[in-house]
Amino acid sequence: MPSSPQLSERISRLTSSLVREILAAAQAPGMISFAGGLPSAEAMPLLRDTPHSHDWLSPVFQQYGQSEGEPILRARLADWLAECGMQVSPHQTLVLSGSQQGIDLAAKLFVDPGTPLLCEAPTYLAALQAFQLFGANCLGLPLTNDGIDPELLAQIIETYQPRAIYLIPTFQNPSGHCYSAENRRAIAEVLDHYALPLIEDEPYRELMYDNVDRTPICSLLKRAPWIYLGSFSKTLWPGWRVGFLAASDDLFPHLLRLKQAGDLHTNRPGQIRVANWLACDERHKDLAHLRETYRKKRDAMNDALTNTFGDLADWEIPAGGLFFWLKLRNAIDTRPLLKIALENNVAFMPGEAFYPASGQPVFGTMRLNFSHANSTDMRKGLTTLARIIENNKPDV
Amino acid sequence: MPSSPQLSERISRLTSSLVREILAAAQAPGMISFAGGLPSAEAMPLLRDTPHSHDWLSPVFQQYGQSEGEPILRARLADWLAECGMQVSPHQTLVLSGSQQGIDLAAKLFVDPGTPLLCEAPTYLAALQAFQLFGANCLGLPLTNDGIDPELLAQIIETYQPRAIYLIPTFQNPSGHCYSAENRRAIAEVLDHYALPLIEDEPYRELMYDNVDRTPICSLLKRAPWIYLGSFSKTLWPGWRVGFLAASDDLFPHLLRLKQAGDLHTNRPGQIRVANWLACDERHKDLAHLRETYRKKRDAMNDALTNTFGDLADWEIPAGGLFFWLKLRNAIDTRPLLKIALENNVAFMPGEAFYPASGQPVFGTMRLNFSHANSTDMRKGLTTLARIIENNKPDV
Repeated sequence: MPSSPQLSERISRLTSSLVREILAAAQAPGMISFAGGLPSAEAMPLLRDTPHSHDWLSPVFQQYGQSEGEPILRARLADWLAECGMQVSPHQTLVLSGSQQGIDLAAKLFVDPGTPLLCEAPTYLAALQAFQLFGANCLGLPLTNDGIDPELLAQIIETYQPRAIYLIPTFQNPSGHCYSAENRRAIAEVLDHYALPLIEDEPYRELMYDNVDRTPICSLLKRAPWIYLGSFSKTLWPGWRVGFLAASDDLFPHLLRLKQAGDLHTNRPGQIRVANWLACDERHKDLAHLRETYRKKRDAMNDALTNTFGDLADWEIPAGGLFFWLKLRNAIDTRPLLKIALENNVAFMPGEAFYPASGQPVFGTMRLNFSHANSTDMRKGLTTLARIIENNKPDV
Repeated sequence: MPSSPQLSERISRLTSSLVREILAAAQAPGMISFAGGLPSAEAMPLLRDTPHSHDWLSPVFQQYGQSEGEPILRARLADWLAECGMQVSPHQTLVLSGSQQGIDLAAKLFVDPGTPLLCEAPTYLAALQAFQLFGANCLGLPLTNDGIDPELLAQIIETYQPRAIYLIPTFQNPSGHCYSAENRRAIAEVLDHYALPLIEDEPYRELMYDNVDRTPICSLLKRAPWIYLGSFSKTLWPGWRVGFLAASDDLFPHLLRLKQAGDLHTNRPGQIRVANWLACDERHKDLAHLRETYRKKRDAMNDALTNTFGDLADWEIPAGGLFFWLKLRNAIDTRPLLKIALENNVAFMPGEAFYPASGQPVFGTMRLNFSHANSTDMRKGLTTLARIIENNKPDV
């Protein structure tokens, strides 16, 4: 009988992914899904037939490319970041095979087994998984509507001596919170004081429905090293897997070599398409259309929630992003309810899954996506979900 | 003054890449380069305008996809592998963002700091770097024209208890060797005996100019776990970054989760294009054209080498792949000659760079690519290189 192969220690930390299972279940026919974070096909920009739209089919871009990314795209990324308030050189930008790859590179850069790493609690599940795979001890900072408490942050840094902090300050996933301008400045000051490296992840930045401050915290840093992760998967075409990072000069060379060792470079036709879009006149119109589409869906979801969950839960209307974050008044663990919901053809994400393994999750939270379901399904699905919550009140 | 950020232990193993530097230097105007392994643009299949050629522009493929890869591509990969002599289910295939990513995943799967790993000496440089980044102690097995010595292999396994072995049996990089049918069977038997996992890398498989046995060793295994890495970067369009792996059932689920944590999934339009090519009638004609183009270049290089290096070096005519492997009769370290060569506008790869860090390199070896330079440059560049070698004979 063959013995099992001996695998690396990290494989023991490669836990089964709740997300994978939910997303697989959510694709069953007839399922109403609030689980995923898929952008809506109707919101994606068109693949326009412009004079340059076939650049990516040029023989040049069929050949191997540079690990850094296409020079034309890097230049336009630097312009784009300048519009976002970040002054970076194109040489500080690195094109990624989706911004998830940036998390893999950051984990490789900072994490040894047992390395303390700060993050928000709750935070992006696939980031938690990637950091924990490399052995990070992820320490969660509680989130408020304004962001995280700078004093607590300083105290945690003093106590645990973390190597880096991972934050999603703008339309945070899963909570939908957006850090206030004041909180962004206060956090930057603390990070500068301790020279603590910041990994700032902004996939939802452009999905803004109400006017709020979105100054990247990276742009406020004077001393702390930083990595800024950007994505086009929520604004353009996720299927092409083109994201990017920008980084401070002390971190950039390592990230570039890690990228090269990981997959040589990102697909070039996709890079050219994103570069073309960044230079096109329709860009602002595309983003306005995107925001309008999602704003309507958000508002419809809020109405439907008020009708179904008004007596069961509290929530804020998110100023951006793709999710509502519900806090049930009866703070039950929602994970066991998922199975019942799926049996009733409704999928959602239990909020408890978004908390780092080291801490206790806050019970009674649910993440509900509003971009996927149509308005009829939305009302129907929420009615079902609310009924399940009501039928499963804790025994008092 | 800011202190340096504390980075992971593995970053100390992220050595400067000789290849990066050579390839950068090789792109200087006027440089004749034998250094890289770029496929020739004239050998790449056309982007044909067929009824299905625009599939990849369909809105469906702009959305997020599955980490496993597109079902249509996985089915065609299984058919393709059957043609190569491997019976695998589509569910054992995983689409990669280039086969380099498969090395990253295999390193994550097997390697802890200090893990002994077997490889050929010499071997693919970027694989060495990826394995060593994770802390592998890469132990090199000497290569002969026929492959590696099965008895030595058994002995090394007994002595060092490695976790896996990485081999490039077909048109090996950098040596160009192709394992004999007998050697493949003998190695499979040893690996089965010890249940030692095999990572078999076959990027050059289709670049065959003389008829030789190419039975994948993975297909001969009865008991040992295995990962087979395949690439389309040498036969189709490297710029799209679409590769794949197939793996035994005991390893596959881990590899899939590692892929998901690494970059979610591979770009979908590229996957569809490769799937279309795998199904098209012109496939065999494309490969015949590719082989004919490279065979001519190989033969021209052999003639030019005979005229320039005939008295200086020995070499075999490679039955496939993209490289000649020269053994200088005066076994000098060729690394110091690279600077002189670059000053004379010729780039090559010193063979010493391809040996694992743990062992002593074999001196006096050079890897010369034959697919890039045109015939005039080829003769001119080799004449210059031969003169440099002659002028730098060791003092006796």
